[in-house]
Amino acid sequence: MKRQLETCFSPALYEEEKHSESVVVVIDVLRASSAICAAFENGAASIIPVAGVEEAREYKSKGYLVAAERDGFVLDFADFGNSPFNFTAEKVRAKTIVYSTTNGTGIIKKASSAHTVVIGSFNNMKALTAWLLNCDRDAVLFAAGWKNRFNLEDSVCAGAFASFLLGSGLYTTVCDSTLAAADLWTLASPDLPGYIEKAAQRSRLREKKLDDCLEYCLTMDVTEKIPVVRNGILVTL
Amino acid sequence: MKRQLETCFSPALYEEEKHSESVVVVIDVLRASSAICAAFENGAASIIPVAGVEEAREYKSKGYLVAAERDGFVLDFADFGNSPFNFTAEKVRAKTIVYSTTNGTGIIKKASSAHTVVIGSFNNMKALTAWLLNCDRDAVLFAAGWKNRFNLEDSVCAGAFASFLLGSGLYTTVCDSTLAAADLWTLASPDLPGYIEKAAQRSRLREKKLDDCLEYCLTMDVTEKIPVVRNGILVTL
Repeated sequence: MKRQLETCFSPALYEEEKHSESVVVVIDVLRASSAICAAFENGAASIIPVAGVEEAREYKSKGYLVAAERDGFVLDFADFGNSPFNFTAEKVRAKTIVYSTTNGTGIIKKASSAHTVVIGSFNNMKALTAWLLNCDRDAVLFAAGWKNRFNLEDSVCAGAFASFLLGSGLYTTVCDSTLAAADLWTLASPDLPGYIEKAAQRSRLREKKLDDCLEYCLTMDVTEKIPVVRNGILVTL
Repeated sequence: MKRQLETCFSPALYEEEKHSESVVVVIDVLRASSAICAAFENGAASIIPVAGVEEAREYKSKGYLVAAERDGFVLDFADFGNSPFNFTAEKVRAKTIVYSTTNGTGIIKKASSAHTVVIGSFNNMKALTAWLLNCDRDAVLFAAGWKNRFNLEDSVCAGAFASFLLGSGLYTTVCDSTLAAADLWTLASPDLPGYIEKAAQRSRLREKKLDDCLEYCLTMDVTEKIPVVRNGILVTL
């Protein structure tokens, strides 16, 4: 029997009770997913996702390396923020990082009732797709969106995963979100940075001069790392 | 200043507090929006939307004409269900109809805090677009979806409205959902029935043999009627 593929465009649409036996792929392209993949590519040992600022501050006081931002800006007590360029080998190799973002870490917690939660981005698309194809479970592509709204970059990334997974013949779908995402990927794929130019988050990052990493975040297959949540902590498969 | 256009893909994503000064276009293509437009095209005087089955039953006992279905099936006490083909001139001319559907009427209530709530479908697209262009307010395209999920047919219909409204130059958007909807319309418009063939609701209607009205629901500009909510009751503008 073919595995079912579903897509969720916003945390407000996530149906926790449906996915306890599924693999959930959390996608927050600009920038949490891309940053987490970069951290592991550069040798991080593990990442502790925390939703709240105070929790992050407590970890800092205990001596942890802390990445924390709100609305794109680094919090004053943190070591660095949410750009994948912050997670250099020099800073993160063999370290445990405490990571709090506006959006991404809350979603990882929301997905935690699933069988397995992995982090997906354009950066690890080929490796993660190959792993999913070997994993005999239904899958959910969970686009983080922005403040509970649909966003383009995460939906298009979900659509890329959907296209590859459905194209394999191992998955099928009865989910309109999955079909729409795949269609958006079809439109976007000939010129992904050009397509994402119109996205709201692209404008927000530009206004805050945080868009230096945009091209990187939209580059496919720069790492083979697959971040996975184990006992609430991110490690690699 | 240009008016803002937003799109909402599901009742679970509707932000009531944001839209008190906006016109909200409720879109439930298969089949509530299309049926409501058909009722007015065929001379109905007004439609009382009710969310609950018991409320509909009470109206029936008072002698009202009642259209009521759940999951596509006509309720036993009702005069007819949710197909636009039920709302013939013979049955509805000059009548007040009480109307309860699985999805559509609940959404009309949800949108009721907006400045104005109108009903949009492919059937009244040109007339409603022309009216919106003359109405100096921000607009929200509210796709009904299905059981709080995104669906293709309502999103594509929202995208058609979005394309026409943005194309006029009178509206602008910073809403990724609007951009995605417009892109889906671009993909769907050369062969709308062909595109909607893959939608989940299309399959559900086929399984229940309720798909005789599909072609009609996807036909543009069969009526110039614009249903509007006034004091909780649908009339025409």
